[in-house]
Amino acid sequence: MTLDIQLAGRIDQQSLFHPFTAITDLKADGPTVISSGKGVRITDIHGQEYLDGMAGLWCVNLGYGREEITEAMAEQSRKLSFFHAFNGMSIDVTIECAEALLKRAPVPMARVFFGASGSDANETQAKLVWYYNQLRGKPEKKKLICRWNSYHGSGVLTASMTGLPGMHAPFLLPMGPIVHTDAPYYYRKAPEGMSEREFSRHLARELEALIAREGADTIGAFFAEAVMGAGGLIPPPEGYFEEIVPILRANDILLVMDEVVSGYGRLGTYWGSQTYGLEPDLITSAKGVTSGYFPMSACFISPKVWDVIESNAERAGLFGHGYTYSAHPVGAAAALAALRLIDEDNVLANVQEQSDHLFSSLRARLGDHWAVGDIRGKGLMIGVELVKDRATKEAFPMANRTGRQVLKAAAKRSLITRALGDTLVFAPPLVINRAEVDELVEKFGDAVEAVLPR
Amino acid sequence: MTLDIQLAGRIDQQSLFHPFTAITDLKADGPTVISSGKGVRITDIHGQEYLDGMAGLWCVNLGYGREEITEAMAEQSRKLSFFHAFNGMSIDVTIECAEALLKRAPVPMARVFFGASGSDANETQAKLVWYYNQLRGKPEKKKLICRWNSYHGSGVLTASMTGLPGMHAPFLLPMGPIVHTDAPYYYRKAPEGMSEREFSRHLARELEALIAREGADTIGAFFAEAVMGAGGLIPPPEGYFEEIVPILRANDILLVMDEVVSGYGRLGTYWGSQTYGLEPDLITSAKGVTSGYFPMSACFISPKVWDVIESNAERAGLFGHGYTYSAHPVGAAAALAALRLIDEDNVLANVQEQSDHLFSSLRARLGDHWAVGDIRGKGLMIGVELVKDRATKEAFPMANRTGRQVLKAAAKRSLITRALGDTLVFAPPLVINRAEVDELVEKFGDAVEAVLPR
Ligand SMILES: Cc1ncc(COP(=O)(O)O)c(C=O)c1O
Ligand SMILES: Cc1ncc(COP(=O)(O)O)c(C=O)c1O
Repeated sequence: MTLDIQLAGRIDQQSLFHPFTAITDLKADGPTVISSGKGVRITDIHGQEYLDGMAGLWCVNLGYGREEITEAMAEQSRKLSFFHAFNGMSIDVTIECAEALLKRAPVPMARVFFGASGSDANETQAKLVWYYNQLRGKPEKKKLICRWNSYHGSGVLTASMTGLPGMHAPFLLPMGPIVHTDAPYYYRKAPEGMSEREFSRHLARELEALIAREGADTIGAFFAEAVMGAGGLIPPPEGYFEEIVPILRANDILLVMDEVVSGYGRLGTYWGSQTYGLEPDLITSAKGVTSGYFPMSACFISPKVWDVIESNAERAGLFGHGYTYSAHPVGAAAALAALRLIDEDNVLANVQEQSDHLFSSLRARLGDHWAVGDIRGKGLMIGVELVKDRATKEAFPMANRTGRQVLKAAAKRSLITRALGDTLVFAPPLVINRAEVDELVEKFGDAVEAVLPR
Repeated sequence: MTLDIQLAGRIDQQSLFHPFTAITDLKADGPTVISSGKGVRITDIHGQEYLDGMAGLWCVNLGYGREEITEAMAEQSRKLSFFHAFNGMSIDVTIECAEALLKRAPVPMARVFFGASGSDANETQAKLVWYYNQLRGKPEKKKLICRWNSYHGSGVLTASMTGLPGMHAPFLLPMGPIVHTDAPYYYRKAPEGMSEREFSRHLARELEALIAREGADTIGAFFAEAVMGAGGLIPPPEGYFEEIVPILRANDILLVMDEVVSGYGRLGTYWGSQTYGLEPDLITSAKGVTSGYFPMSACFISPKVWDVIESNAERAGLFGHGYTYSAHPVGAAAALAALRLIDEDNVLANVQEQSDHLFSSLRARLGDHWAVGDIRGKGLMIGVELVKDRATKEAFPMANRTGRQVLKAAAKRSLITRALGDTLVFAPPLVINRAEVDELVEKFGDAVEAVLPR
């Protein structure tokens, strides 16, 4: 590193266009420049250490600085630093990785298609939905049902699928055959007095009406995160998928589970699909597959979809889709190391244990705070929604930027959280221990109380 | 590696969905499973070595097994295995990389936006075109002019931008506000007797007519590779960009150069934009930025575009676009190492020298072969188009799959090439030496003559 610490902030602002950042905020505050990480902690260029309550971007599931992954990557890079799987070429380690992934799928899956990001994987899934339906003679089954508050990526199509208006209007999106349906946002969207179960039935009826309105013959797939992440940390209300799935099946609509965040243990099961008893036709995964050490995505394709593709292969000819990094050997090595560590570290058991502890500690510390409207989530994916009035659920004025204030107060206490509006989110590394959970809750409690005194 | 060599091919076919592969070909031939690589050579699991005339997928510019890149990645991964630049966060090495890239830009550029693939980068560029035009009050300037035979990626939008019908129909594309204009394919598309210069003027008039037809007020940008790669290895005819660019300027249409292949030295200049004297408003790069060792893309944003973004920042608020890996520290370290090696290895001089040698050797060996219709390209991006009849340019029947036959004959002689229809392509590592060029030409000559005897 030759970067001058004093100049880093200025050079950042003169050279880097930041994703998901307000330029005016960056100008006002300057960047926080991270330099190293170990376990659940990261350190900035001034030596300030933080407990990373977000595992980077919900991805560093096994923690920072895991020699096992880095060394597996280095060894593979020395052996074969790049190759691809276009035109019938392949790579030993990539084959091994595909096989290891299929063994871990929540339901029997036929094939894996690799990429380098959750976005590229969801673009792949949309194209597969269209490919599959065209091959079986139903090209008009093209629309994708996505949900408000969902996040599926930043490509033009995947940003369009995403149910966040702030990601649409500035870029003149949505574009493409996308229909949005309601978010299963019980806290905010359920009519007064409705139970979770009733709300789920209500959403199912809404979905049915939408399908009737659009025409089942025009609808290819339903995309869903297991627990909504970036759109506000929204777990499905009780019975949600039980109500939704039969409607999809009855209308010959594919279920695509976007497990970019929920895959590889975050909810305390290996897959979110297992938490909610789902049998998806397609699964999107990324992030946790390498714990973020290497950009990689893996789409799982069910026998139902694959059989149509394979049995029409002669007629279809070349499958004209793929990314340069759709088989990267170093990504495969990183994934194999990460999969091994998920087992060896007993990640699933730890998530269950620390999740319980984190939920109960948050409730103990903040459950009676006047501004804490909702504490919700699943596994190690937890959100705390702050409100001006608990009784009416009235939100703070947007201009207050309450969530951001709390985020800053937490950062001052060396804790990284994320503010989705006024919902503060935690998705720490899955290897977090009890003492670290305690520290997280203490610092977060202090931050909330500093901004919103009791 | 625990993969059984005997089983590798079967496991591949039972687990991996290959990009850009015909399933029936894969079934017939089985995969070629690569296991290691060093310099310009790769080795398969049976110990068979190949000279990689394609640098992977036109990306391993510095050759396989460069310790300098692998060790830079490993060192960085140990220090900080992942972090991001969302919400004003940053990373020391990523800042350093952005600065290093800006220093190397062909024209003064204001900012770099990172991603993990050429596809995600072009999706970013399209969104930036729309963002920019909306901010300056011209939201209706939205259409993207792309060219037939272009390749811009495999996302839904980028595959739509791509001018290859085989990538459209099976997926019900193109989708989005895209207009295709003619490819500058002199060998095939120029009317009999027209000079290159005249053909360039002809294409410029076509473009003008298209703009008039669509309305300049509806057109946001023109996307172009410097030399077309995947669509048939098509260099621009003489005067092409000189004729095109003034038309774009006159109609307030942004020029986006897709330098995913041409960037970082492949044409013998650092950028294709320099080869053709261009001043792009946006530049897309990927592949060579890390020599393929790590998935990374870098979009360059000109002051003209950036000024509009920055001066409207307060009104615009959060920039709602980005990828998890839009700042990966290990990618930044890989890029910094690769940039250093491009200088240290004198890559540009070597490309110029070996390009001359490769062209003249190919012409000497095959220039008088009855089936060699055209030998074309720039730098180390060279195509040889095979035809049934040199005089009439009549192509071989598609069903013959002549290009594929030659590719297989070359592989038997331990040379990797790529068949784009009947155009055989070379884009070897930029560090290839004279003896290796000789070997490439000899093996290729033998392969052509084996399939198409003199
Ligand atoms: C559910 C979900 N899908 C897709 C994505 C997109 O992944 P990427 O940022 O790697 O493109 C994300 C990223 O946060 C995500 O949370
Ligand atoms: C000119 C060009 N643009 C974009 C891309 C897409 O890059 P990627 O495969 O990394 O998504 C490619 C890939 O070959 C390319 O050649």
